Amino acid sequence: MMIFTDEYFMQLALLEAEEAFEYGEIPVGAVVVLENKVIAKTHNLTQTMNDVTAHAEIQALTSASHYLGAKYLNDCTLYVTLEPCVMCAGALYWAQIGKIVYGAPDPKRGYSLINTPILHPRTEVVKGVLADGCQKILEMFFRKLRE
Amino acid sequence: MMIFTDEYFMQLALLEAEEAFEYGEIPVGAVVVLENKVIAKTHNLTQTMNDVTAHAEIQALTSASHYLGAKYLNDCTLYVTLEPCVMCAGALYWAQIGKIVYGAPDPKRGYSLINTPILHPRTEVVKGVLADGCQKILEMFFRKLRE
Repeated sequence: MMIFTDEYFMQLALLEAEEAFEYGEIPVGAVVVLENKVIAKTHNLTQTMNDVTAHAEIQALTSASHYLGAKYLNDCTLYVTLEPCVMCAGALYWAQIGKIVYGAPDPKRGYSLINTPILHPRTEVVKGVLADGCQKILEMFFRKLRE
Repeated sequence: MMIFTDEYFMQLALLEAEEAFEYGEIPVGAVVVLENKVIAKTHNLTQTMNDVTAHAEIQALTSASHYLGAKYLNDCTLYVTLEPCVMCAGALYWAQIGKIVYGAPDPKRGYSLINTPILHPRTEVVKGVLADGCQKILEMFFRKLRE
């Protein structure tokens, strides 16, 4: 159906980022989609959980795997508002995720800064979807932090 | 004290790997040590938890952070029986772990295969501690799997 575009699901990830923002978390949101159905909706929880591994993507993988009762997510798409870091890209490799759609690039810690390919060779990547909105909420957060 | 050598703590990590073996998990164990005190003892749980992110190191970081109520582990040492993968190295970067001691190298998925430095610049690395024992339990596991 026409409604199920990358922009549609990224909008849901962005709503998750907004929720993170309200909780004082760096606002990154993620959803996992299987056959146009959202099977996981999460956001960054590093502050709340006092745990550097609680990035939106890691939460999303764990949640999707619990839902499916399966470790591998070959038929799933991850929508995430910020380019995954090296840790998350490594996790997405292990999960053999089918497709990654991300919003804003991360010029400091994004996985694409690494010279060696990290993702699974069969993982498709789409970048820049709703990038402006995904970027803006991060800028707002860090501006507020410096006030 | 003389007893608190890298070999001593690696032996504890190896005991964790043995426990993983008994549960049918790829036998990798880890402990986190702060001022000669073990604050986390874990092993790989990917099968049990149906979760590719449940590597020994990720469990260890999460557990140590919960124990300390702190996200950063600058004064801690992680002992792990196998060289960390890219995901775990990325997590160890975020945790700013003080020191990593690992046993067996991982010539397929070890983080040192990546050309770009992944770990935090202040993280010290010691490799090859009890490497033979750490390697042997992995070989036993995969041999048994093929039987």
